[in-house]
Amino acid sequence: MALITLTSDFGTEDFYVGALKGAILRHAPHARLVDLSHHIPPRDILAGAFLLRHAATEFPPGTIHLAVVDPGVGGTRLPMVLVSRGFIWVGPDNGLFSFALNDSGSPCVAYEITCPSRASGHPVSPTFHGRDLFAPTAGRLASGLPAESVGPPIVAPTRLTQTRPRRRDRMIEGQIIHVDRFGNLVTNIAASDLQSWGSSEVRIRLGGRSLQGMSTTYSDTDEGGTLALIGSSRLLEIAVNAGSATEVLGVKRGEAVTVTRL
Amino acid sequence: MALITLTSDFGTEDFYVGALKGAILRHAPHARLVDLSHHIPPRDILAGAFLLRHAATEFPPGTIHLAVVDPGVGGTRLPMVLVSRGFIWVGPDNGLFSFALNDSGSPCVAYEITCPSRASGHPVSPTFHGRDLFAPTAGRLASGLPAESVGPPIVAPTRLTQTRPRRRDRMIEGQIIHVDRFGNLVTNIAASDLQSWGSSEVRIRLGGRSLQGMSTTYSDTDEGGTLALIGSSRLLEIAVNAGSATEVLGVKRGEAVTVTRL
Amino acid sequence: MALITLTSDFGTEDFYVGALKGAILRHAPHARLVDLSHHIPPRDILAGAFLLRHAATEFPPGTIHLAVVDPGVGGTRLPMVLVSRGFIWVGPDNGLFSFALNDSGSPCVAYEITCPSRASGHPVSPTFHGRDLFAPTAGRLASGLPAESVGPPIVAPTRLTQTRPRRRDRMIEGQIIHVDRFGNLVTNIAASDLQSWGSSEVRIRLGGRSLQGMSTTYSDTDEGGTLALIGSSRLLEIAVNAGSATEVLGVKRGEAVTVTRL
Repeated sequence: MALITLTSDFGTEDFYVGALKGAILRHAPHARLVDLSHHIPPRDILAGAFLLRHAATEFPPGTIHLAVVDPGVGGTRLPMVLVSRGFIWVGPDNGLFSFALNDSGSPCVAYEITCPSRASGHPVSPTFHGRDLFAPTAGRLASGLPAESVGPPIVAPTRLTQTRPRRRDRMIEGQIIHVDRFGNLVTNIAASDLQSWGSSEVRIRLGGRSLQGMSTTYSDTDEGGTLALIGSSRLLEIAVNAGSATEVLGVKRGEAVTVTRL
Repeated sequence: MALITLTSDFGTEDFYVGALKGAILRHAPHARLVDLSHHIPPRDILAGAFLLRHAATEFPPGTIHLAVVDPGVGGTRLPMVLVSRGFIWVGPDNGLFSFALNDSGSPCVAYEITCPSRASGHPVSPTFHGRDLFAPTAGRLASGLPAESVGPPIVAPTRLTQTRPRRRDRMIEGQIIHVDRFGNLVTNIAASDLQSWGSSEVRIRLGGRSLQGMSTTYSDTDEGGTLALIGSSRLLEIAVNAGSATEVLGVKRGEAVTVTRL
Repeated sequence: MALITLTSDFGTEDFYVGALKGAILRHAPHARLVDLSHHIPPRDILAGAFLLRHAATEFPPGTIHLAVVDPGVGGTRLPMVLVSRGFIWVGPDNGLFSFALNDSGSPCVAYEITCPSRASGHPVSPTFHGRDLFAPTAGRLASGLPAESVGPPIVAPTRLTQTRPRRRDRMIEGQIIHVDRFGNLVTNIAASDLQSWGSSEVRIRLGGRSLQGMSTTYSDTDEGGTLALIGSSRLLEIAVNAGSATEVLGVKRGEAVTVTRL
């Protein structure tokens, strides 16, 4: 029984998520559906890409990841099936799968979805490719359709630029790419970028402030204290113990972060 | 393995959704549960009915749709099982299934749930028919119980009045029946109501404004521009490209919309 | 096919829930996942414990309940597997399972999780035991691992103090332990605490107000009227018909409630 995960910016107040699920199950009645998130901020491709990078990659090989954050629906961006890192990804070619593409040297092939497959008797809606193109395609892939039969190859799938920091000799220039529910500030600087540096011999700068050294977990400081650590995403994170770093520091997504080796 | 979908106004902060799921699985351990939405606005029967119309109908035939938006719980409204359009619907008889009833000429039979079936040893709570009546009933239907054995027929299930617009010779008078997450204004005027009219020969009026002609997708205008189109629900929708029509136009649910043939 | 429920304070905007699900399914590909709630207020152990008490206990015997509300992650609190009331509970030993422990005289055994089992090749993150300890453990339990093999026994699992009221001769002193989505005020006074008292012969006091007698359901008063009743959780609840008791009465969680027998 195939596993299909769902990620979108649909929210959970509208009929969109339910329609997506119904359309998948109509094409693959035995598929098992797993919600990752439907609360990607509306039209926020970077937030969707970040979530997919850190949630979708935990699943067993062969999982189908359907994702729809699609501000250009009905326009020129292509509907895509991507085979990468042992998974099948289905959604718009707009950068949403950037981290899946960037993150390793594994082979990766992409196909444009050209065979509309809506089986309900309705035409494909130009505003809801999730229900009318991506869900039926995911369902058919789950039922055994080979990825290469959905349409012609896409040579260079779209990639976002925020996924990697700039590295100099003794300095790394990154940015905040995510603020989580607890107010933690997650950067695009990976644990592996800092690997050869001792955890006490770095200085982190952001929002006019400076932190020296890295902690291991939130409770390494008193409540209300600010710290830097490798967070759950294995990225450099700035946090406030039992508090919200975004509120305490007044820092938001996009802000620059530098790490200097002392 | 039976499919059971869940729709409610329970939100996701309380124990209600979890209790509902547990109660179903206690009666049908192999059923597969699919969340449609638990964020119907509290006590908003119309919003629940709208969601069911556009999400539940996408599912494979035979799916059981359990829905609880039930401001009159414990009062005089009847607990109901409804067989309509190839699906089984379980919930209160308060208009929640209006669109399922209205939308086609297909045969439809309804039954009052009179056989309480709570198997936990507790009495049926007068405030939580979801857990104590509807969930066990859905579970038993999933396990093979025939719909007609839950209780006596309901002759005329409750219907809401907002589901259809008024039609005159060259004019249709409808209303906004839904505002979605993106701020799009969805009317009760169907694509089929406008079918014989050319898309450029209509004038749409709402909130003191007037729009001429229909677009195909959101990106047909510049960002920030207002347009009318047939949306994902196959209903006439007023939208702002990359923006929120409800905010830009100051229009909410219930406001009148007229379409005139030029 | 094992059933595993999920409860957390992760919210649904971040990657945490998806990563948790992926990590379970990597260790138990055939497990069926059921979301109870991921909207426990951040770090609110009492709210998580309350939800588990009233949702998790509805499930079929043998269900595995994975719960993560874990402000002390990476600190001294122990990761735990608890066998109680016919269920297996997996999460931090910080009081989150208090109600499961307190509520009956059934035997209960607890074990510290000492065998890290992260199979992804990454070390256990000190900030995300949900993904790296609890999810793999739940998955392995679902695949047949005996509970006692996860580690040594925990003699006295942590219990919260708010779970039970104080009882005197003709008076019970409790408190509001939960405010639900509809604004209903739920106390820690159980239906069974009031069993021998007639429903008209009690006086309920909270927030400087007094209510005499108990109602059966919300619609027993006019809209806007305040009433006391045994709610969906089988606890004494103060509600406003078609309104929000927390707003109307200005009462929040933690406030004292007394019931006097007249």
